[in-house]
Order: sequence, then C-alpha cells, then structure tokens
Amino acid sequence: MPIEAIPMSQSRTKTTKLVMPPNTNHHGTIFGGQVLSYLDEISAIAAMKHAGAAVVTASIDSVDFVSPARVGEVLEIEAVVVSTGRTSMEVFVSVHSIDLLSNARKLTTESFVTMVAMDEENKPTPVAPVYPETKSEKALFDKAPARRANRKERMAIKNGI
Amino acid sequence: MPIEAIPMSQSRTKTTKLVMPPNTNHHGTIFGGQVLSYLDEISAIAAMKHAGAAVVTASIDSVDFVSPARVGEVLEIEAVVVSTGRTSMEVFVSVHSIDLLSNARKLTTESFVTMVAMDEENKPTPVAPVYPETKSEKALFDKAPARRANRKERMAIKNGI
Amino acid sequence: MPIEAIPMSQSRTKTTKLVMPPNTNHHGTIFGGQVLSYLDEISAIAAMKHAGAAVVTASIDSVDFVSPARVGEVLEIEAVVVSTGRTSMEVFVSVHSIDLLSNARKLTTESFVTMVAMDEENKPTPVAPVYPETKSEKALFDKAPARRANRKERMAIKNGI
Amino acid sequence: MPIEAIPMSQSRTKTTKLVMPPNTNHHGTIFGGQVLSYLDEISAIAAMKHAGAAVVTASIDSVDFVSPARVGEVLEIEAVVVSTGRTSMEVFVSVHSIDLLSNARKLTTESFVTMVAMDEENKPTPVAPVYPETKSEKALFDKAPARRANRKERMAIKNGI
Amino acid sequence: MPIEAIPMSQSRTKTTKLVMPPNTNHHGTIFGGQVLSYLDEISAIAAMKHAGAAVVTASIDSVDFVSPARVGEVLEIEAVVVSTGRTSMEVFVSVHSIDLLSNARKLTTESFVTMVAMDEENKPTPVAPVYPETKSEKALFDKAPARRANRKERMAIKNGI
Amino acid sequence: MPIEAIPMSQSRTKTTKLVMPPNTNHHGTIFGGQVLSYLDEISAIAAMKHAGAAVVTASIDSVDFVSPARVGEVLEIEAVVVSTGRTSMEVFVSVHSIDLLSNARKLTTESFVTMVAMDEENKPTPVAPVYPETKSEKALFDKAPARRANRKERMAIKNGI
Ligand SMILES: CC(C)(COP(=O)(O)OP(=O)(O)OC[C@H]1O[C@@H](n2cnc3c(N)ncnc32)[C@H](O)[C@@H]1OP(=O)(O)O)[C@@H](O)C(=O)NCCC(=O)NCCS
Ligand SMILES: CC(C)(COP(=O)(O)OP(=O)(O)OC[C@H]1O[C@@H](n2cnc3c(N)ncnc32)[C@H](O)[C@@H]1OP(=O)(O)O)[C@@H](O)C(=O)NCCC(=O)NCCS
Ligand SMILES: CC(C)(COP(=O)(O)OP(=O)(O)OC[C@H]1O[C@@H](n2cnc3c(N)ncnc32)[C@H](O)[C@@H]1OP(=O)(O)O)[C@@H](O)C(=O)NCCC(=O)NCCS
Ligand SMILES: CC(C)(COP(=O)(O)OP(=O)(O)OC[C@H]1O[C@@H](n2cnc3c(N)ncnc32)[C@H](O)[C@@H]1OP(=O)(O)O)[C@@H](O)C(=O)NCCC(=O)NCCS
Repeated sequence: MPIEAIPMSQSRTKTTKLVMPPNTNHHGTIFGGQVLSYLDEISAIAAMKHAGAAVVTASIDSVDFVSPARVGEVLEIEAVVVSTGRTSMEVFVSVHSIDLLSNARKLTTESFVTMVAMDEENKPTPVAPVYPETKSEKALFDKAPARRANRKERMAIKNGI
Repeated sequence: MPIEAIPMSQSRTKTTKLVMPPNTNHHGTIFGGQVLSYLDEISAIAAMKHAGAAVVTASIDSVDFVSPARVGEVLEIEAVVVSTGRTSMEVFVSVHSIDLLSNARKLTTESFVTMVAMDEENKPTPVAPVYPETKSEKALFDKAPARRANRKERMAIKNGI
Repeated sequence: MPIEAIPMSQSRTKTTKLVMPPNTNHHGTIFGGQVLSYLDEISAIAAMKHAGAAVVTASIDSVDFVSPARVGEVLEIEAVVVSTGRTSMEVFVSVHSIDLLSNARKLTTESFVTMVAMDEENKPTPVAPVYPETKSEKALFDKAPARRANRKERMAIKNGI
Repeated sequence: MPIEAIPMSQSRTKTTKLVMPPNTNHHGTIFGGQVLSYLDEISAIAAMKHAGAAVVTASIDSVDFVSPARVGEVLEIEAVVVSTGRTSMEVFVSVHSIDLLSNARKLTTESFVTMVAMDEENKPTPVAPVYPETKSEKALFDKAPARRANRKERMAIKNGI
Repeated sequence: MPIEAIPMSQSRTKTTKLVMPPNTNHHGTIFGGQVLSYLDEISAIAAMKHAGAAVVTASIDSVDFVSPARVGEVLEIEAVVVSTGRTSMEVFVSVHSIDLLSNARKLTTESFVTMVAMDEENKPTPVAPVYPETKSEKALFDKAPARRANRKERMAIKNGI
Repeated sequence: MPIEAIPMSQSRTKTTKLVMPPNTNHHGTIFGGQVLSYLDEISAIAAMKHAGAAVVTASIDSVDFVSPARVGEVLEIEAVVVSTGRTSMEVFVSVHSIDLLSNARKLTTESFVTMVAMDEENKPTPVAPVYPETKSEKALFDKAPARRANRKERMAIKNGI
C-alpha cells in the first residue's frame, strides 16, 4: 500500500489534440462536450499515475468556456494531482488552444476534477499523500482546503433542494 | 426575431442510451467524460429547440456523480430550458440509470448548463424569454436569479486567482 | 420468470439525436445506414425493457426512407413493443426529423423490428405478453397476427429461392 | 450522360470486416444495427460505381438475420447492382460470416437495397441500364420486375394505414 | 497443428472503403494515419486466414504515399500472405484510389507487413508454409529472402543507434 | 513567409493516451494500426507547429513494434521535427508504454515520418530550416542526410520493381 508522499511532478500529464471537423459545429468551433470528455480522460490518467490504481470520477467543479477553439487549432491539455484525501485525489486541469499560424495561445478552460482510487473489488482504496515542489504547485496545494470546504457546501445546498 | 415568451415544455428533450463496453472502464462502469458529453449534447438540443438557432456551451455548473452506471443499464437523460438572459439560456439536465432486471431507477447526476444562441456570423443573438407551466417548472424558474448570482460570484473568484 | 402481461407503456422509449456532419454525405443529408443503426439500437432498448433480459435482432421489416434528414436537424426516434410471441417481441419504431428554425416535423421512416430475448446461455427465453392501453396502441396490437403471417410467407419465399 | 448499358460486373463490390468487441453485445455477437450499417455502406459504393454519381438510400427490403456473427469472425460482404429504373438502382447485398479456425462460412443475411442517383443539385438523375452476364446474374435480373411490383404494393399498403 | 502448405489464394483479402469527411483534412484528402490503420487491419485478416489463429503486428516496412485519396473516392485495399517464417507471415498489401466519375484508378501506397501468429497463451505459434500459384505470386514469393535479409539489417542498424 | 531558422524545441509535441478496450485485441494488447494512427497524428501536429501551415504525410519509415502495450497502460508519444528540406520536414516520433502499477516504461516503437507543408491551393510550400539545441537533438540532426539518402535509394528500388 502506498504510504510515502509523492511529488506533484509524478502525476503531471500533458496531451495535445488537433481540433478536427467531427468534433466541431458548423461554425467550426469545438463542442463543449468534447472538451469535457478530454478533461475527464486526462484527469483520470494523472490520478492513475499518482494512485497506481484504477480510478472513477467523483465530481467536476464548474467549467467556464472562456474562448472557443477552432478547427485546425491545437489543444494543449495538462492535468496534475494537487491534493489528496484518504481515497480521493483533486486534479487541476487546464486547456489552452494554439493558433498555429500566429502561435497565439489562449486559455479555453480550467477546472478541478475529483477522482477516487478503486481496488480490484471496485471499492475506494487509500492513496498516498501528494506534496508540492514549485511555487505555483504550492499555491494550488495551499488553497485545497478552501476548495474542499466549498464543495461540501455545494453538496449540502443540492441535497437541500 | 423571437419576441413572444415560449413555454418550457417546448424545449424539453429526452434521450435514452444503452451503456456499452467501449464507454466503460474495466469494472464495467461508465466514464465520467462520456456522461458529460451526453449532458452537453442534449442541453444543446434543448437550447436549439428554444432558440431556433445554433448554440455554443458557455459553462456547466459543478457535476457530482452520485452513483455509477453499469454496462447493460439504460441511461435516461432529460434537458429543459429553465431561464433565459438576453442571448443565453440556462438548461437543467438530469441523468438517471435504470437496471433493466430490477427496474431500479437511480440518479446519476444533474446540473445546469448555460448555452448562448449564435447568429449566422457566429455572434451571440437574442432569445425569447421562457415561462414555466407546472409547479416543478416554476420552482426551477424562480431560483434562477440566485443561481445566476452564484455563477457571477464564482467567475469573480476565478479571475481573482 | 415473467408471466403477468405488461402494458405497452412500460417499453415505450424515446431518443433524440442531432444530425451531425460525420453521419452525412456531401449534400449534408444523413446516411441510411446511420438511421438503420439508430432504429436497431432503440428497438433493442425497448425490447430489453419489456423482457428484462438481453435481446438479439431477428429481423427488420422493409424500410422506406420517405424524406431526408439534414445536418443541424433533430431526429426524434420512438420504439414500443407492440406484440409478443413465445420468445420474440415485435417492436414498432418511427423516426421523425425536426427543422429547428421552422419547427416542421416530418416522417423519415417507420418499421417493425423483431427482437428475441436471450438467457445467460445465449438461448431464446420466454417473455411476458404485452397489452395495449390506448386506442392507437390497440390498432398496432390488433394487426400483429397479419404482419406475423406476412413475415412467415416472406421467409418461405426466400427459402424457396 | 450515361446511356450505354453497363455490365453487372462493373458495380460488384466486396468488403471484408473483422467482428470487433465494440460492435458486439456481452455474448460477443454483432449488433444487428452494425450489420445494417455495413449493408448500406457497401450498397452505396456499388451503386456509385454503376451511376458515376452520388446516391441516397431510398429503401431496404426486409432483413432476416439467420445466424449470428461472433467476435474474431470475419464478415464477407458483397453488393452488386442487379436492376435499374430511370433514376433508381436495385442492389443485391449479402453477408457471410467465416470462422477462421474451421473455415466454416455461413450466411448471416441478404437483402435488396434501392439507391437513387443524385445530381449536383441533389435531385434524382438518370442512370444507365445494367445487364447480366453470368447465369446467376441473369436469375437475379429476371426476377427484378416481380420484386419491384412487390415493393409498390407494400408502399400502397403502408400509405393505407 | 497446420503442417501442409497453403496456397496464397487462401489468404487473399479485399476490402473497399469510401473516403469520408471525418477521415480527411480540410483539403478533403485522407489522413496518412487512416490509410495505415486500414493497411494493418486487412493485413491482420489475411494473416489470420492463413494461420487460423490470432495475430499481432511485428513490423511494417516503409510506406510512401505516392498520391492522395479524396473525399468521395473509393479505396480498394488488398492483402495476401506472400512468405512465411516459423511463426511469422509476410503480407503484401496495396491501396488504390478510384475516382468514380472518371473510373481512374491510382496507386496510393503499397508495403509489406509482418504478422506473428499467437496461441491462446499469447505466445508465437508455428504457421503452415505458403506457396505461390500464379506468376505474379511467384515473383513476390521469390524475393522474400532478400526482403527478410533487408529487415534483419535495418534492425541491426537500429539497435546500433 | 518563414525564413529564419526555428529551434527543434518549438515543434516538440507530447501526448498521452490510455490504452482502452476498443483499441485492443482479445488478448488485451493494442492494435498496430492504432499505434500507427497515433504516430501520424502527433507527427502532423509537430510539423504544423514548425511550418505554421497544413501538412500531408509523404512517407513513414519502417516501424518495428518491439513490445506490446496492454489495456490500462498509458502511452507516451513524442514527436519533433529533426530536419527539413525545401517543403518537407522529417519528424522523429517515439512511443513508450507505462505500466501504472510498477511504473515500468518500455519502448513500443520509434520511427521517422516525412511531412510536406501545403499552401491554400494544396501545393507544397517552403518551410523554415530547423536547428538543434541539445546534444541529443544534434545527434538526430546530423544523421539526417544519411537517412534521406537511404529513403531516395529505397524509392529507386521500389520504382525498379
Ligand atoms: C433469431 C434467432 C435467435 C432465432 O433462432 P432459432 O433457432 O430460429 O430459434 P427459435 O426457432 O426458437 O425462434 C425464436 C423466436 O425467433 C423468431 N424468429 C426466428 N427467425 C425470425 C425472423 N427472421 N423474423 C422474425 N422472427 C424470427 C421465431 O419465430 C421465434 O419466435 P417465438 O418464440 O416468439 O415464437 C437466430 O436466428 C439467430 O441467432 N439469428 C441471429 C441474431 C443476431 O445475431 N442478429 C444480429 C446481427 S447478425
Ligand atoms: C428517394 C427519394 C429521393 C425519392 O424522391 P421522389 O420525390 O419520390 O422522386 P421520384 O418520384 O422521382 O423517384 C425517384 C426514384 O426513386 C424511387 N423510389 C422512391 N421511393 C422509393 C422507395 N421507397 N423504394 C424504392 N424506390 C423508391 C422511384 O421509384 C424512382 O425510381 P425510378 O426513377 O427508377 O423510376 C426521396 O424519397 C428521398 O429523398 N428520400 C430520403 C432519402 C435519404 O436521405 N435516405 C437516407 C436516410 S433518410
Ligand atoms: C512480435 C513479437 C511477438 C516477437 O516476439 P519475440 O519474443 O521476438 O519472439 P520470437 O523471437 O520468437 O519471434 C517471433 C517471430 O517474429 C519475428 N519478428 C520479431 N520481431 C520482428 C520485426 N520487428 N519484424 C519482423 N519480424 C519480427 C521473428 O523473426 C520471428 O519470426 P519466425 O518465427 O518466423 O522466425 C514481440 O516483439 C511483440 O509482442 N511485439 C509487439 C507486437 C504488438 O503488440 N504489435 C501491435 C502494436 S504494439
Ligand atoms: C507528398 C506529395 C505532396 C509530394 O508531391 P510531389 O509532386 O512529389 O512534390 P515535390 O516533388 O515538390 O516534393 C515535395 C517534397 O516531398 C518530398 N517527398 C515526396 N515524396 C516523398 C516520399 N515518399 N518520402 C519522403 N519525402 C517525399 C520531396 O522530396 C520534396 O521534399 P523537399 O521539398 O523538402 O525537397 C505527393 O506525393 C502527395 O500528395 N502524396 C500523398 C500525400 C497524402 O495525401 N498522404 C496521406 C495518405 S494518402
């Protein structure tokens, strides 16, 4: 069983996608659902790298699509485990689009995904703690308790509906 | 240009999906990203029915996956426009899984998606207002301003990062 | 084992699809094969809801594509078990296209699909009888023996080739 | 514009597919909808070869799935234009499955698909007549009027519903 | 266990694909990766027909794309086992594109793929020898030792990097 | 038009894929065709980053699959432009598989892909030269003329068949 803390760098995962016509509407901009699907896939890989186990998606924080990505542009997607609970991992994930002609790089969206490690019987299983090394990693790590409290609150409100 | 208010019933959209192996992990439970992709697709259809125009996804509120859906189960997904701004529509979307042997029906997740209507030049374009008819529609409609305020606040916090 | 008759309403299944570029030819109209694939998928779900068991497709009656469906239109597909044999179910399935700008709704095609319930050893297994509740359900139910006779005849002719 | 008759051999088209897990149910047998989609695709290619033009699917005759095809088996699918109208072509299509270990070859299904040639304005456009060369081609060609009459009758009955 | 030699004709496999928009770039020409994927799939089928067993791809020789294939064109792909080792099979595979309006047929690419037969424990397993029947089959068969030597050499160079 | 030389680092592109059941055979190992398709996609992205233009695949050198990748493993794929001609770019691409439990990282395959930059009329268009910065980049750069000569020779032999 993992017990020693693991640095964030171990779970950091990058992927690059070309925006292709089947994933776009007739204005040539990518579907939100396609971006969400990429977010989930790469977050799962980052979490599996940290946990050394299978994972399931417990939740995703709100996602604001701040700029569209167009056919022929490239998406750079990056995910990293930024905090851990007993069996859950909080993954920070960001998506940027790059226009290859101008080299302009724009934020498409960023969010936090919570993944839970699962054992062979498909039950939640403990994960090692994570620790930050760089300054920006530390910033993400330090605000984790606030984000966690925020999620608790939002669950309570939902259940109160 | 649409000016008369439209009842919620006009945008209500249902879809049914069978959970199939390519969309599941090796425990046979559906990927979160697949569910998010379904959410976005059906929310877009509901919004297009209301707007009579193309739409893009502006944002999705947080999504909590409260129970897994397994291979061979059926997903019932439903979306409806529950409030409108000038060019944006707020869509309530829910996903339930059904076990066909026991007929047990469980909530998988529910959330709110904001869609924006786009004209032929791919610019935001005004939409007609929506109005509720049933009691449960009214409940969703009446809490829209609170949800909207909440989203404004979360954007402000994000930009403050 | 199911023995009590089940109302048609229990198997009634609706789904909604957006016609997307990858499923269309260069005139922007949907491929027949894509529509046939949707027909089969939803008929299988309706039959599984009735049988509470896995199913296979035994046959599909002739399909006439009476009008094309175009990119950006919405398909509404509906299936319901309208009669039963010992192990087989006859499913009525229809497809309509909707132009979101004009709200015009047109029949694309309709047909009957025969599904057979399969047990865990992949052998045909008995299903509960079905009964109609509404007038239009009764019309479909009452003509089932004629359709069944027709299929037997067509099988005989085929084998005589 | 094509005016000279064209031999059947010119449109004859073969394709080979491996039955793969994503196209099969949990018993490992292929979905009916997948087979129908293959039927339509290859019939369209055969008709385009004859017409030298784009085509749409007007109808498919009834399809009986006489034996299942399993994961790891190979499907051999063959289509040929067997008769022509003014703008329509009747395509005979058959599917066989082959078990690679035993070399056993079994009929999965066969049917007739009617394709209509379309010009650049997406209107039906005339096609050249077809003529048979071999004995089995002649048998299919000679029974075309009977099948055509049969289809007219079935359309009349449908419209009378 | 197979011991008797098998003629090339037994493994010869043909397939026909329509070049469709999702598989093409914005100039409407097919992606190289799509062609490579077709090459591998049909080579595997040819090798499975020869071996009567599952296979894996050990290598593919260099591939030159000598002409593009465009949306609406048809690809004819053909594969045949042209020589055998103890557990490996060398498959010759070629791709031609056909313009349906002019009937012009052009070579897209051709190459040799080496497939290895695998037993139920996923270990290499012996295959029967192959023999040529026609003159062109014999030409391919006779040059196999030279190609094999060439591959050994290229492996040696690679390992020396 | 690009004229100044561009460092290799500008085109370096990484992507990460999870090996999933639909891309694997029944032993759970990935299809060669799937790996080839990934190779081509990422090589095209690297070349587009260098050229700031659309590209087509001219050729791929021989590919040896030295170890299988299994379901649940992660593929790390990396591509970089290592030399240029007038309109062509030579891309070095490698694939490694990672077993997430043991963190073992193994070479799956590596090869060189030649991409050609295309202008808006779909004609080859000049690209900027590339230059190496690190020692390992320089090693790849310096052997480019030898590889290029080798490819010319292989084309000559092919044309002599
Ligand atoms: C359908 C299938 C299971 C029938 O098997 P069978 O050995 O004929 O079994 P039975 O004679 O017990 O028939 C079972 C039921 O299927 C019905 N049936 C068989 N062929 C049929 C056909 N072509 N059309 C309609 N119903 C049919 C029978 O009438 C019987 O119905 P009932 O129990 O309600 O009286 C068998 O033909 C099969 O496996 N076909 C392939 C199914 C498949 O895999 N489809 C997907 C694509 S290939
Ligand atoms: C097929 C279609 C083009 C026919 O249009 P139409 O206005 O009826 O045109 P026409 O009356 O000139 O008929 C054209 C030909 O199609 C034939 N046809 C029409 N409906 C048919 C049917 N259901 N079955 C067989 N042939 C049919 C006609 O007999 C005629 O043949 P001919 O020229 O050889 O004598 C039209 O119904 C259509 O567009 N359908 C949708 C096609 C499609 O998009 N399919 C994919 C999935 S929806
Ligand atoms: C191909 C593979 C099974 C060979 O394993 P191995 O331990 O080298 O086994 P062997 O030494 O017994 O070789 C088996 C045969 O493969 C041949 N072979 C191995 N590598 C080869 C290559 N790169 N090119 C051509 N043939 C090759 C051997 O010559 C031998 O042929 P023979 O039996 O006819 O003499 C192994 O390298 C492997 O599993 N590779 C990955 C295959 C795969 O999964 N491909 C899909 C994408 S990764
Ligand atoms: C690649 C292609 C554009 C070259 O066209 P061409 O008429 O030979 O053009 P040119 O002679 O000007 O060659 C352009 C460049 O491609 C290079 N090239 C051509 N064939 C090549 C091959 N098989 N391998 C490597 N480079 C090749 C030339 O050396 C030249 O490079 P340079 O400008 O750096 O000196 C053309 O063969 C083609 O369109 N092929 C199909 C590409 C495609 O669609 N691939 C996807 C799947 S089919």
